[in-house]
Formats: sequence, C-alpha cells, structure tokens
Amino acid sequence: MKEVFYSYIETLQNQITSALELIDGCAQFEEDLWRRKEGGGGRTRIMQNGGVFEKGGVNISKVFGPLPKAMQAYFKVEDVDFFACGLSLVMHPKNPMVPTVHANWRYFEMYDKSGELIDQWFGGGLDLTPYYLFEEDAEYFHLQCKNACDRHNSNFYQNYKKACDAYFYNSHRKEARGVGGLFFDYCKSNEQMNMQQWYDFITDVGDHFLEAYLPIVQKRKDLPYTAVERQWQEIRRGRYVEFNLVHDKGTLFGLKTNGRIESILMSLPPHVQWAYDHHPAPNSREEALIEVLKHPKNWV
Amino acid sequence: MKEVFYSYIETLQNQITSALELIDGCAQFEEDLWRRKEGGGGRTRIMQNGGVFEKGGVNISKVFGPLPKAMQAYFKVEDVDFFACGLSLVMHPKNPMVPTVHANWRYFEMYDKSGELIDQWFGGGLDLTPYYLFEEDAEYFHLQCKNACDRHNSNFYQNYKKACDAYFYNSHRKEARGVGGLFFDYCKSNEQMNMQQWYDFITDVGDHFLEAYLPIVQKRKDLPYTAVERQWQEIRRGRYVEFNLVHDKGTLFGLKTNGRIESILMSLPPHVQWAYDHHPAPNSREEALIEVLKHPKNWV
Repeated sequence: MKEVFYSYIETLQNQITSALELIDGCAQFEEDLWRRKEGGGGRTRIMQNGGVFEKGGVNISKVFGPLPKAMQAYFKVEDVDFFACGLSLVMHPKNPMVPTVHANWRYFEMYDKSGELIDQWFGGGLDLTPYYLFEEDAEYFHLQCKNACDRHNSNFYQNYKKACDAYFYNSHRKEARGVGGLFFDYCKSNEQMNMQQWYDFITDVGDHFLEAYLPIVQKRKDLPYTAVERQWQEIRRGRYVEFNLVHDKGTLFGLKTNGRIESILMSLPPHVQWAYDHHPAPNSREEALIEVLKHPKNWV
Repeated sequence: MKEVFYSYIETLQNQITSALELIDGCAQFEEDLWRRKEGGGGRTRIMQNGGVFEKGGVNISKVFGPLPKAMQAYFKVEDVDFFACGLSLVMHPKNPMVPTVHANWRYFEMYDKSGELIDQWFGGGLDLTPYYLFEEDAEYFHLQCKNACDRHNSNFYQNYKKACDAYFYNSHRKEARGVGGLFFDYCKSNEQMNMQQWYDFITDVGDHFLEAYLPIVQKRKDLPYTAVERQWQEIRRGRYVEFNLVHDKGTLFGLKTNGRIESILMSLPPHVQWAYDHHPAPNSREEALIEVLKHPKNWV
C-alpha cells in the first residue's frame, strides 16, 4: 500500500502543479528535493510572485524510521517504527476575491520492533479560506466535496464537513479559519471499509481537488479590488498564521520533530498584517465573512 | 506588596508612554480599559502608525481569582487562588535601523483556599531585536542591563543574560529572536534576597528601561533605508511572530486561559512577510545579523 500510495501522490503532485501553473499563466513552481537524516525526504514545489498566486506550495514527502519521542506520547505508543507519506498544498492568491486553498492527503504505518505492521491509516482533506465571501463559491466547493464522499459512503460528507469546521478553528478568536470542506483522520480498516476501499476514497478526493478549486479561481482571478480590500486580506491572513502556528497539529509536530522547516512553513502567507483590535464596518462585506466564520453554515 | 507593585507599574506605564510619545513626535497612545469576568482587568495602551513606531503597546493588567486549569498543571498545584499583575510592552519601529524592544515586569501570588499566601514571586526582563546590527547599540543596551543588575547582585547580569538568550530562542530555526538582554522568573525570597530586595531590583530595572532604549531610537530613527532593507525587516518580523505564537509561554497561556486576545496579540508586528527559504547574501549586513543570532555574544 505504501508504494502504491506514494506513487499516487507523486503523480497527483505533477497534475496539480501543472494545472496551477497553467491557470497562473506567469510563474512556475521551483522544486527542492530534500533528504531527512533519520530516513526519507521529500519533493517541495513552491511558487512565488505569480500572476494569480502570490505564494504557495505543493509538497510531497515520505519519512520513516523510529517514531520520534514527541509522537510516541501523542499516539500513545512506545518504541515503534513508522512510515508516513503525504501530499500537502497551500495556495495563497494575490487577489483578495480568490480564496486560499489548503489540502492534504496522507498515509501512515506503524511497526513493532520485529518489523510487523501493527497499524495503518489514511487521513487528509481540503478546505477553503475566502477573504470575501461568494456564497456560490462555498456551495460549489462543498458540493464537489460531497460528491466525492457520496460515491463511497452516504455519511462521510456530513461527518467530515463537521470535523473540518471543528479542526480549522481559531479557538482564541472563536471563529473558523475559513468556510471548511473535508477533514478526516485515522481512516482504518473496519466493518464497512477495508484499506483498499479507503484508498479508493482518498484518491477520489485527491482526483477531484482541481475540479473543486480551479473553477473558483477562474471566476474570481480578474475581479478588480481596492487597497482597502487588499489590507483586509492581509489582516485575515494573520488569522491564517495564528491557526497554523498556534493550533495546527501538523505544523507543530513538524517544528518539534526536526521536520524540514521551510517545507512546513511554506503554508504561511507572503504579506501579512496585524492591526490592533480591527473590526469590520457594520453591514460590510467584511462583516458578512466574519458572521459565517463565527457560525459555520451547511453549504449543500 | 501587590498594591505597592501595581501602583508602581501604573506610574511606570505613564512615564514610558509619555516618553515614547515624545520621541515619536507624531502619534499618541490610545487607551482601552478592560475587565476580566473572573476577576481583574487592565489598561491597554496602543500606538499605531506613528512617526517612529509603526505599532506598539504598553499594557498593564491585574488579574485574580481561581487559578485557571491550564496553569494549575504548569505550576504543579491544584485548586488555588492567584493574583498576577504586570506591565508588558513591545514597540515595533518603522525604520529597520531601529530595533524592536520588548519588556515585561510582573508579580505573582498564590493562596490556599483559606486565603493564606502560599507563594509569591517577581519575574520579567527586557530584550532587543534588531533588524540591522549596530554592535555599539547592543553593547549599550546590555551595559544598561548590567548596571541595573550590578547594583543588586554581581551574578545577576550573567545569569539573566544567559536566561534571556535561552528563552527568546526559535529552536525550530536554531537562532535567537534578537540580541537579548535580561530574563528572570520565580524571583522568590531566599537567603540573599527578601521580597523587598527583589522589589528594589525589579523596579530598578523598570526605572532604567527608557535609558536603555531611547538613546538607541534617537540615534537610528532618522537613518535612511531602502525598500530591500524594509523587506528584510518584514521577513525578520516573521521570526518574531513565530517565536511569540509557537514558543512564548506568556502568549500561549494568555490564548489558552481566556485572556484578552487583543492585548496579548498587540505584540505582533504590523506588516510581516514570509518568503520561502530566504537567505541573506554572503558577507551582507543581513548575514552579519544572522551570525550573531546563531551564536549569541557577550556584549559587555
């Protein structure tokens, strides 16, 4: 399974970076190959200062070896070996009318000291962070999420949509990071789904990422915007940074387990502002966004 | 002691904000008074878009009541009451030749359920974060720190200078946040120092803050700078954000114990950048700064 899934994300990275370069029309991804001392490495692809995307990355990595101490406590296991691979992407568009997107698909295995496989699971998801809310975009994105889920299990969409709202939540601000999407983890063999069926689900979600995001980019990328709207985007990007550095388990694990810092922090936006106690004007478009982040909606 | 120290930081806040307004020459501090539901409150003073200071705050607060759960575990105590008060300041200058400064002086008491005082201590310090290194500024700042320490104990400076380098450290970058200063905590009554003597030490450090920082501001505030130097400042400010959101205990406690978010996050800089895998040019002034952050120096 690990070879099959890694080969899948290698291909998916190629597909996604090609399609994003095409719609960007200006910049190309730069590639960095890196190795991890303890085992494994990755292929980081970063775009900066594009026509559409101000900064973003589409990274794959495969890491293995003894499970780091910090993760032993988290997974409540002791001295085991692990294998993990995944694709992580974050794209920060320049135009504040185009939402930021994040997606991740990953696979994890654990082994006892004799090398016997003792656990394996998939995880991942995708979510959208608008700066200006176009309800039809959120509906469209969620509909694509739902379609991918419904092909596998009729409960998945509502469960994973709720999990996404709960996970990407800035508890210190009492607001969601964005309008959500899907979040799933510990997808293990059970009575309904064996690992092959989970693989089919995860890869179906991965295969439909571009279809969920690109039409939104296409529709909004040439909309005009003002300096004030751009400022709002940069302030909201500050909330994105707060989530990733204070709450995101993946980022914090990476920082605490000797991950490749630049690949992990590629998720941070390029230009960001913090203004003291900033509040949008009553009945503004900015306030309408906050309203939805404070009270997550059912989009489909 | 708690009334005496709170009254001291009230006066100190007035002195510091007046002096900073004077040197800024343009903006004034805006004041927000706030109350904490569980007990206490604060007086937040924020300056934005000044002539010298792009953003900053000089805040005092006094909070008390049952010790929040998250802090019980940290202090290894159970169901106790507490009182805490302090002054916290961060000033982010606009000109990249002027260093950011941070300082904090605080006092803490804990009581058992009968109201009996069971513990009390002071903590605090001050530290400097330059974007361009002027060695004479770092030396001057540290000399003021040392003078304040030496009036009380000849070991304080070297101990608290080391503690500052160790605390304000971005372990995930393997570099210090800045050129340090003083950091001390759990200053409790012992064989050498009773609480009154600790009070004398803390207030001596507080009383000499302006003398340690203002001459540096005065010397650098009108230096010319380029857009590239400004960009470097914004990238370095990103490291400041990383420290405060990932590592700083005070910030994380505040975020997790229902503190006033806007007063806590006033420490974040106004305009910030993250560029992928940015490295200064060999033998540049930017590289000289990194060198010192990677290998903290003895400045006096």
